[in-house]
Amino acid sequence: MPKFDFDFITLGHGSGGLLTNKLLDSGVFDVLGNEKLNKRHDGAFLHLKGEVAFSTDSFVITPIFFPGGNIGELAINGTVNDVAMCGAVPKYISLSFILEEGLPMTEFWEVLVSIKEACDKAGVIVVTGDTKVVDKGKGDKIFINTTGIGEVHSKAAIDIDNIKVGDKIIVSNQIATHGIAILSVREGLEFETTIKSDTTNLNHSIISLLDEFGDAIHLFRDPTRGGLSSTLNEIARDTNTGIVLHDDKLPIDTQVKSACEILGLDPLYTANEGVFIAVVSAEKADEIVSKMKSFKNCSHASIIGEVTENYSKKVVITNTMGGKRVVSMQVGEQLPRIC
Amino acid sequence: MPKFDFDFITLGHGSGGLLTNKLLDSGVFDVLGNEKLNKRHDGAFLHLKGEVAFSTDSFVITPIFFPGGNIGELAINGTVNDVAMCGAVPKYISLSFILEEGLPMTEFWEVLVSIKEACDKAGVIVVTGDTKVVDKGKGDKIFINTTGIGEVHSKAAIDIDNIKVGDKIIVSNQIATHGIAILSVREGLEFETTIKSDTTNLNHSIISLLDEFGDAIHLFRDPTRGGLSSTLNEIARDTNTGIVLHDDKLPIDTQVKSACEILGLDPLYTANEGVFIAVVSAEKADEIVSKMKSFKNCSHASIIGEVTENYSKKVVITNTMGGKRVVSMQVGEQLPRIC
Repeated sequence: MPKFDFDFITLGHGSGGLLTNKLLDSGVFDVLGNEKLNKRHDGAFLHLKGEVAFSTDSFVITPIFFPGGNIGELAINGTVNDVAMCGAVPKYISLSFILEEGLPMTEFWEVLVSIKEACDKAGVIVVTGDTKVVDKGKGDKIFINTTGIGEVHSKAAIDIDNIKVGDKIIVSNQIATHGIAILSVREGLEFETTIKSDTTNLNHSIISLLDEFGDAIHLFRDPTRGGLSSTLNEIARDTNTGIVLHDDKLPIDTQVKSACEILGLDPLYTANEGVFIAVVSAEKADEIVSKMKSFKNCSHASIIGEVTENYSKKVVITNTMGGKRVVSMQVGEQLPRIC
Repeated sequence: MPKFDFDFITLGHGSGGLLTNKLLDSGVFDVLGNEKLNKRHDGAFLHLKGEVAFSTDSFVITPIFFPGGNIGELAINGTVNDVAMCGAVPKYISLSFILEEGLPMTEFWEVLVSIKEACDKAGVIVVTGDTKVVDKGKGDKIFINTTGIGEVHSKAAIDIDNIKVGDKIIVSNQIATHGIAILSVREGLEFETTIKSDTTNLNHSIISLLDEFGDAIHLFRDPTRGGLSSTLNEIARDTNTGIVLHDDKLPIDTQVKSACEILGLDPLYTANEGVFIAVVSAEKADEIVSKMKSFKNCSHASIIGEVTENYSKKVVITNTMGGKRVVSMQVGEQLPRIC
């Protein structure tokens, strides 16, 4: 960490004046700098090819440091993944901080370094940004907005309208891990576990799949807050189809499963960060899963269900005993501020 | 306002589940909906031509309703203007809310409607978004991030490196109005005045100027928080030149000037929202100012100074008596959370 003239963020760091510039000069530009960001204009100039995907997310997770990551890398991975879910190659990120007065510089620095590392891993750069400071008690340490731009893959045909009855639903990895990792460190709820958040960038896996399988993939989505249930319910609703899931096919870590049972949480409603679902042509589904299993972050890929003409606009889960239940969309908030 | 099932924002509205969808369905999509947003994917698909400008800002202004506007239109105008300052035509906006639990729906609705109106006036659409809710006492009613994309004007040659000694500095309108308008309604500081924030979209004026004067314009910047002094100091620093201002040329409303005097504020450090500066070729400066005066939001346009080889990296202001003083960058925070 460089030597800062100050140990804590003050309101002046959001003034747009000397202190803002000091904050930027004494760290931000050194860590994140690149030809575009260093222009220091009100915006960045980009040259883009073909169709573009554009996605935004604000991150308000608490605590900002958690098992397996922190809000900085989460903010980069989250937006990188949203752009990738559009079938696009993420390229440029805007980064906007809302800092709470009194935030220790050590914490800000750690988040900043994680942002840089996450950018490098995903192959994106921060090209423009903003820093605001709110008075103590009017924020909560750090909120981050990231907005991403990517170029749509030439073989991508991601469109919810391409989904048809018979399509298979693939989940890329074990579910509910992020939610349980955060819960394990929430004030008043702490429990001992080795479970870590699954936050990771998914773009390289997505791009490899598009390279090989192109228009056999009809939709990518990442079931973050709201969990698998909300994402699948949205798909069922927006396609006027039904979705049937098979209980025994859902990949879930044993520890995570136990924690869910003890805490009375349904893993289908628990947040993920490094998981995506793919809705794909039935004939290519096995091949796609077997390719996915060769990726480090998709090692538990599994076909968990299919699109059906029954149960219109509903998600139904079946168990090996032949039982069925409707999985509705999450109603309230199982775990606030999970991302 | 439509009939909502709820009077206040709750944590569940940020869950990504049913309540988030209810919030979106019962208002947001009706107000802001368009073909791209209605796809409800993780991101939007855009077709863009040529070079693109990309800019982000988070808005944390307090109070959220103020004389002349509210945080919603401010958030649209602010990002529209940042994109325009790049010499680009703003087209697409991402919109991300961080709402505080307990926010009355009436206030959220009023902000939403203002966002729509500001978009229509500026000629932009919201194509993707995000809604997070933080627990009461961990935010402050509404924070908004907007990120904008625009297509660079074919005649634009906006680059700080194009600035040369002799260039004229034009300010588009009366300064310090926004800062004083906000101050007049700050708790504990209220004073009676008819001063209103100057928040407005500047893109139409910028585009007209580029249409007519193209590469005679070397830089646009909007001196928002930090005021005119910070923006001009940044330009002097980044170009290794000096800037001389003429005190008697600074356009300022009489009421605003009086308020500054009474409150001990320097208008050069007070925030603007609907003002831009242009650094232009000396030979075209008068023509540009006279064109600007025909625009409603630039009626007080004035050449306020020039770029000089003296005073390297400094901004100096002269008065009619021949006096000179250095205008340094704002050090602390004159007025926190002004935008």
